[in-house]
Formats: sequence, structure tokens, C-alpha cells
Amino acid sequence: MTQPLSEDQKPSLKATINERSIGGPEGLGHDPVRVPFEALKEFTAGFLRKLEIPPDEARRGAEILVTSDLRAIESHGVPRLDMYLGMYRNKYFNPCASFRIERETGATALVDGNGGLGLVVGPKAMDLAIKKAAATGIGLVAVKNSSHFGIAGYYAEMALAHDMIGLAMTNAAPLMLPTGGKEARLGTNPLAFGAPAKNEFPFLLDMATSAVAMGKFEIAARLEKSIPEGWGMSESGQPTSDPLVVLTDRKLAPLGSFAELSSHKGYGLGVMVDILTGVLSGMGHSMKLQRLRAGHFFGAIKIEAFRDTEEFKLEMDEMIRDLRNTPPAEGSSRVFVAGEKEYIAQEENLRLGVPLHPKVAYRLKQIGEELGIPWNMDAS
Amino acid sequence: MTQPLSEDQKPSLKATINERSIGGPEGLGHDPVRVPFEALKEFTAGFLRKLEIPPDEARRGAEILVTSDLRAIESHGVPRLDMYLGMYRNKYFNPCASFRIERETGATALVDGNGGLGLVVGPKAMDLAIKKAAATGIGLVAVKNSSHFGIAGYYAEMALAHDMIGLAMTNAAPLMLPTGGKEARLGTNPLAFGAPAKNEFPFLLDMATSAVAMGKFEIAARLEKSIPEGWGMSESGQPTSDPLVVLTDRKLAPLGSFAELSSHKGYGLGVMVDILTGVLSGMGHSMKLQRLRAGHFFGAIKIEAFRDTEEFKLEMDEMIRDLRNTPPAEGSSRVFVAGEKEYIAQEENLRLGVPLHPKVAYRLKQIGEELGIPWNMDAS
Repeated sequence: MTQPLSEDQKPSLKATINERSIGGPEGLGHDPVRVPFEALKEFTAGFLRKLEIPPDEARRGAEILVTSDLRAIESHGVPRLDMYLGMYRNKYFNPCASFRIERETGATALVDGNGGLGLVVGPKAMDLAIKKAAATGIGLVAVKNSSHFGIAGYYAEMALAHDMIGLAMTNAAPLMLPTGGKEARLGTNPLAFGAPAKNEFPFLLDMATSAVAMGKFEIAARLEKSIPEGWGMSESGQPTSDPLVVLTDRKLAPLGSFAELSSHKGYGLGVMVDILTGVLSGMGHSMKLQRLRAGHFFGAIKIEAFRDTEEFKLEMDEMIRDLRNTPPAEGSSRVFVAGEKEYIAQEENLRLGVPLHPKVAYRLKQIGEELGIPWNMDAS
Repeated sequence: MTQPLSEDQKPSLKATINERSIGGPEGLGHDPVRVPFEALKEFTAGFLRKLEIPPDEARRGAEILVTSDLRAIESHGVPRLDMYLGMYRNKYFNPCASFRIERETGATALVDGNGGLGLVVGPKAMDLAIKKAAATGIGLVAVKNSSHFGIAGYYAEMALAHDMIGLAMTNAAPLMLPTGGKEARLGTNPLAFGAPAKNEFPFLLDMATSAVAMGKFEIAARLEKSIPEGWGMSESGQPTSDPLVVLTDRKLAPLGSFAELSSHKGYGLGVMVDILTGVLSGMGHSMKLQRLRAGHFFGAIKIEAFRDTEEFKLEMDEMIRDLRNTPPAEGSSRVFVAGEKEYIAQEENLRLGVPLHPKVAYRLKQIGEELGIPWNMDAS
């Protein structure tokens, strides 16, 4: 069953080890345009209001999108406004969707998102999970009839201020191959998990269950770089180093990349997310979804239900420091903890402004002119 | 914090490579000894009683161990009886441990395992999670002061007969490198997730968060085969293809294997498991654990709290069939679903007998003679 790496695959894998981190700051090009966080949020909220999203919900949706840019997760922030605009024009979502709880216990709920935008449905569902966890120790909320909800990490992180552990997942239409298959059967089905610390940055894991998210291919294509074999597959399900092939055929490898490196685990995690977000919610699993439609799953766990919160946070600090202080392997500067790079970027970008690719900034201004949203980026 | 193996422990570990049969069918050699499932379970229960485990608990612990062999997951079954015997003789666990609920809400509990064997503490804690889920829709149980608990999948699967989704995790002393580091900071920290189907085998994911589990290196060493780069690292944290190097230095790569193939995700999942099993339980995270000591985390989710159970199972069937029927990539026979290979092995081995490596069968008989446990393997 194992598919060993062929001899010509091996060297390319080894050669690219030191070439990591395609994406991140270098993906922005050399001269990003920097704009104040609050001003960009105001612009984005204005944009969402133009899509008929009510003002309070627009403000919150904007916060989610711009937080993504603030943390240098370009793939999910304002560069996607065009996508949301297209969704609006094609009536892919219901701007004035109701939020209906269809089943409920003290600790659980099933929510019908009524075809709303994920950025609107998601925060309300996570609020509900947090409220339930405050009352019973744990809150789990499955959501059907929703759509693209931005970065999963935002929702998981919402729990942290309440001294809770947070969990968020979403499914999506197929993009990822199951191990041994040559057709996409799963979305990149991300999962996010966050836990608070006391003095350190929180632990915040936000990961697609594919080897990399779709945005990485877009960045590589823009920079005209090849990609490591193991990220995506060709039409016939074989590894490719050409990002354009993957952008065309849309066949992403699961985390683990190759059968012999345990890609069945990434594939299995993708199915796990699909079961919770798609099958349990009644939304339908990835294969049944139209593009940009989604089911979600949110969780909040009250730390105090298990352990003294202060003790928990102090031990989180200790663990995070121990991880960070791991002696680095040759060629590595140091060990990072999940979320740390994004929080560092956030601190810097709050100070210097949110970095936007010049093409993105240009396009946003255009959208603003088209829709009549003022571009006030000098206010800070 | 870390407690590395002492120098006299290391060689003995290497010496046992050829004495144990660990890993999939290729580890069994050409002539496995086949023994009846019930007889092997009886023998194993007798063994656990010799370690002063009370009869009912011994029967259940034996069921967990032998289920592992039945499903061809040799790394966690009866080949480990020597390990449990060593733990007993070194007083690594408390045979008559109490099971104390230290904190509790309707949906959550913190359990103190009182230094008991994981095989004894684990099933009781999962029972408790299931009981809570029956009452409130969800049950989460964190466990401290426990030890090696066998296959995580067994516990997740316990929920399925109750029309629930099951979840199980454990931490363990460090074996896995964080991305960019050259010293082990995390256990292989497995997680298991199971969901029932109607006519198909259940979905049952049971995975170490490392690229592969320790047993794979033992098999490769026994067969004198090299290993794929990406499974484990050398002393300096560089990829190696020599299984003996990994068995000596004990530095496993996280799922994803290389930074550029997103090993930070496998590393992040390992920390997630550590937070739930170690930090939330108060057991201590991997770095604080002595070898074979562990904290656990169990969960059960009642399907009916979210959706009609029958509908859920029918959609699971549909999803599983759609995944299995994915057109295979070149060089692959077909796509499998998590748990499927193990359930197929189980059906075959229930019929033909549980396959044991001849050396394992020999060693079990020896242990039986030493301790006075009858080896009645002809009864079927």
C-alpha cells in the first residue's frame, strides 16, 4: 500500500528543506503598502454593509477579516473582498440571514445559519458555545447552512478571554485528495485550537488538514517560484512542483504529503473535521457542498471545570517557554510555538500598519470607488 | 524537566528489537502462530491478575491489549506484556489504584487515576464520559496520574455502540522533536476519533501525532531495511534513513516530517494533545513525565443531541462509500477509510486466529511458565 518516494523525488524534497516559508512576509513583495488597522477595519465594515450585512455584523465580520491581515495570514483577509463581492452578486449567501437554534441541550446546540455569510454566522455560534461553557463547563455548537467564515483561529481564540479553551472547524467543497486517490474528496477542512497562557502569547493552532492551504500556491505562482513536491498533485494524482498545475487541477495533498510519510493521517483528520462540521450538522460532507458553502463546528471548554485557571495558565507559560528554548536543529534559528509568529506580526503591524501587497491596496481602492466606500488610510 | 533514558536503559531497548514483534503484517515474518482470540484474552487476563490487577479490570485490560493484536496493530498488544511486567516489577504503577473524581459538572470530570495502569484507569474514565454524554449530550473527562493505556482507538470506539462520537488522547514522555528543534519535547501524543456508520465499518482514526509511531523503526531494524527520510532524526536533528539511529537517539519527526511540508502542524497537534491530557488534567505536559506515565483525555458526543442518529449513520455510510470509490492514483489499488484495514484484519483474525510472531508466542509461553499462567491455545 505504501508509495515509496521515487529516487528523483527524494533529492528535490531534500533540496527544498532550507527554502521553507514561502508565504509570510516575503510573499508580500518588497514594498507593501501599510495602512492603519482601525482604518482598514472601518473600510472593510463599510464594504460588508454594501453587501447588505447589518452594521453590527459588518463590524464583526470586518474584524475577523482584518485580523487575518494583521497577523500576516494574507490568504484569508482583505485580498478576499473580491471573492465576497462575487458571492454577493451571485447570491451565494443571504445577507439578512436569521440565526436559528434547531436543537439544544445545556451544553450543545445545532444552529441553522439560514444561508448566511460565515463571517456573520460564525461569531454568533461561537458566542453560543462560550455561553454554554460558562454554564455547564463545555459548549459544542454545530452549524449548517453557512459559508466561508475566514480564519478558524479567530473563533477558537474568542474563548481565551473567557478562560476557556477554544475549538473551531469548517468544511468546504473538495480540494484535497484522499491518500491513494486521484480525485479531490475533501475540503482543506481546517481546524483551530487555542488555549490561554498567563504571560506568554496564547497557544493558537490554526491549520488546514491539507499539507498547505490554497493561498500558498497563489503566492508561489505570483512570485513565479516552484513549490516543494508534496504540496499538490497533477491531474493523474502524481506530485508536481508547478503551482499553476495545482491551481488549475485543484488537487491538494493531505498533511503528510506522501503515503509513506503518513498522509493517511492528514486525510483522516480532514474526514474527522468533515464528520463534525458536515455530517453531524446535517450540512453535508465536503463532497456534497457547493463552492464556498460550509458547515462549522465550534467548542469551548471552561478550564476551571477541570483545574484552577491560574495554575493552568502558569503551566502553559512553562510549556511554551520550554518549547521555545529547545536547542535548534542545524539550519534553524529557533523553535516557534503555534500562533507565536502571527502574534509577533500582529504587534509589529499594529505599530507600523497592516501590510498590503500594492496590487491588493490598489484593488481595494478600486472596489471602494465602485461601491462608494471612502478610503481613509491616512487616519491613524 | 525531561528525564532522558539512562545509558543502561538505551542498550536494553536496542536489544529488545528482535525479541518483539511490532508493526503491521510485514513484522510477523512468514509463519505467524495463530491463536484463538478468546484464549489469548484469557491468557492475558491471567497475566494481568498476576500483576495484582483485580479480575474484572484484568479482563477489560486484556480485551484492550488483545484487540490491538486482533487488528494487526502489533505495537500495542501482547508483545508488550514484557513491558507491563517490567512496569509491575519496578512499581511503575499501583495495581489496586482507586478511581477518584476530583472535579465534576454534568458534562465534565477530572479524574485522579491514583497511579494506576492506563489499561485499568482508561476504560473507567471513558465509561464516565459516555455516561455524562447520555445525560447532557457531551462528556469530557481529563485524567491525571495514569500510565500507558494501549491503543487510543479502543476508547474512542467505546462510544460508538452508544450512538456517540468518541474521542481519546494520551500524552507520554518526550520522543518527538518540535519543528526546528533538535531535542525531543513531546510524546508521540496520539489522538483517536471514532464515529459510527450504519452498514459500513465505523470511521476510526487512531494516530500518533508523529510521522510514524516508534514500532515502525523496530520493524525496519528487524528486517534490516532503511527508513524513508522524514520519519526520524539523527542526534543533530537532521533526517536519517537508519532506523537504528532513531532507536538509539529517540528523535521522531512530527507528522508532516519537514518544515516545508508543514511539520509545524504535526508538532502543533502534539502540543494540542499535551494541553488537554497534561496541562488541563494537571498531570504535567510531556516534558514533565517519567517514561510510561501519562495523562489522558476522553470525550463522547451524543449524535442525537445534534441530529437524528439514523440520518447521521446513513450519511456516514454514503461518505465512506464515496471515499472508498475515489478513482485510485497511479500505483495505488484503492482508497481506504480510517479504521477499515484494521476492521478487515479483525474479521480475518477472528476466523483464522490472532497472528503472533513465533518469537512473541514463544516469549508469552515463557512468561506463562514463569508466572504460572496456563497457555491453552488449542481451545477455540
